[in-house]
Amino acid sequence: MPRAVVLLSGGLDSAVTAAIARSQGRELFALSVDYGQRHRHELEAARRVAQSLAVRDHVIVPVDLSRFGRSALTGQYEVPKDRPADEMASGIPVTYVPARNTVFLALALGYAEALSAADIFLGVNAVDYSGYPDCRPEFIAAFQRLANLATKAGVQGQLDFQIHTPLAGLTKAQIIRRGLELGVDFGLTHSCYDPDPAGRPCARCDSCLLRLKGFAEAGLKDPLEYKAES
Amino acid sequence: MPRAVVLLSGGLDSAVTAAIARSQGRELFALSVDYGQRHRHELEAARRVAQSLAVRDHVIVPVDLSRFGRSALTGQYEVPKDRPADEMASGIPVTYVPARNTVFLALALGYAEALSAADIFLGVNAVDYSGYPDCRPEFIAAFQRLANLATKAGVQGQLDFQIHTPLAGLTKAQIIRRGLELGVDFGLTHSCYDPDPAGRPCARCDSCLLRLKGFAEAGLKDPLEYKAES
Repeated sequence: MPRAVVLLSGGLDSAVTAAIARSQGRELFALSVDYGQRHRHELEAARRVAQSLAVRDHVIVPVDLSRFGRSALTGQYEVPKDRPADEMASGIPVTYVPARNTVFLALALGYAEALSAADIFLGVNAVDYSGYPDCRPEFIAAFQRLANLATKAGVQGQLDFQIHTPLAGLTKAQIIRRGLELGVDFGLTHSCYDPDPAGRPCARCDSCLLRLKGFAEAGLKDPLEYKAES
Repeated sequence: MPRAVVLLSGGLDSAVTAAIARSQGRELFALSVDYGQRHRHELEAARRVAQSLAVRDHVIVPVDLSRFGRSALTGQYEVPKDRPADEMASGIPVTYVPARNTVFLALALGYAEALSAADIFLGVNAVDYSGYPDCRPEFIAAFQRLANLATKAGVQGQLDFQIHTPLAGLTKAQIIRRGLELGVDFGLTHSCYDPDPAGRPCARCDSCLLRLKGFAEAGLKDPLEYKAES
């Protein structure tokens, strides 16, 4: 089986991405990054998802991006709540972490080259949420080009690195339906940017709102227990 | 003064690169990466060099690339010794670390964006040592393009990220002369891949051999005390 590296955040999107990679006959190697995110419950979720998908190996690399500052996700700003959909769809939010996906893909590239894996899977999604510059197709294409210039295996023609983003054209509802078809247990995932100490999602941050909207549009109930429900 | 991020390894090349950036009127912010290198004395050297150049801040980020394996620099292979110059000039050596400069530049990009610094300086050098794919001008150009697609500040036109490699066209002897003109104290730097426990360089790895050849061609004596001298 050809090997693939999957960036696994513990969220819904990366879980479905990993399930798609497996359904395409790849042997999965998962990579998660402990980057100082305030929603650290997602790393526990990544472990659960990795286990449920029987990945061959799961590496969690600590890289403290909060040292650089400037993001709500690493604690420098408040996580925005209750934003209307049109506001979420315009502009880059304060949850943007400088160069985050560049760092994640760079680490995935090192891991992939060491494993002789040509394929890297990333769960970015441009339809429901286009605010982050490092989720756009032009960024992904530029990274793929870089990957083949940056590496011994790329330059010597042993591997042709491909960055796969199978969710890029899907709505959140479509992602959820695809995940269910592939047997993803969404109860294992974590999407909230600002959970309570027990890890329960807030139901009010952008990530919760998009997730709940996706389940509603898919005509399904999110298996997670939300803080606001209690 | 415009701000610049300098990737500071503790070696001779990055010390001269930092001195050049400072001579061009930049306020320096140094970034070093503790990536699991066996020659950890270079991080101490990076601290000394940063202090001698009066950098505004020096961040050392731990990112354990040895988790991925596959390099002599992170302990998976022996560091080669006594290689002739023509052998060093051909092929990619086992000291290549998968995706290392991609990871370094990705971190530098995050740091630069958080600081509102458009300029990133990297001490790669293509003349004396062209073995590493991620030291070549085409890699640097591809990363610069990526940087401006990957970031909020790049996409919104607030910063035009530039990756500066002022040593790219210089021989090691020219780099050493330029450093002396700028007052770099080479006694603070560390280049050896395989020092003894006291940090003394081996004089036999590729890095020592290139450094010693550079000093010889410049008609100068390296201020470091080498293991082989004792």
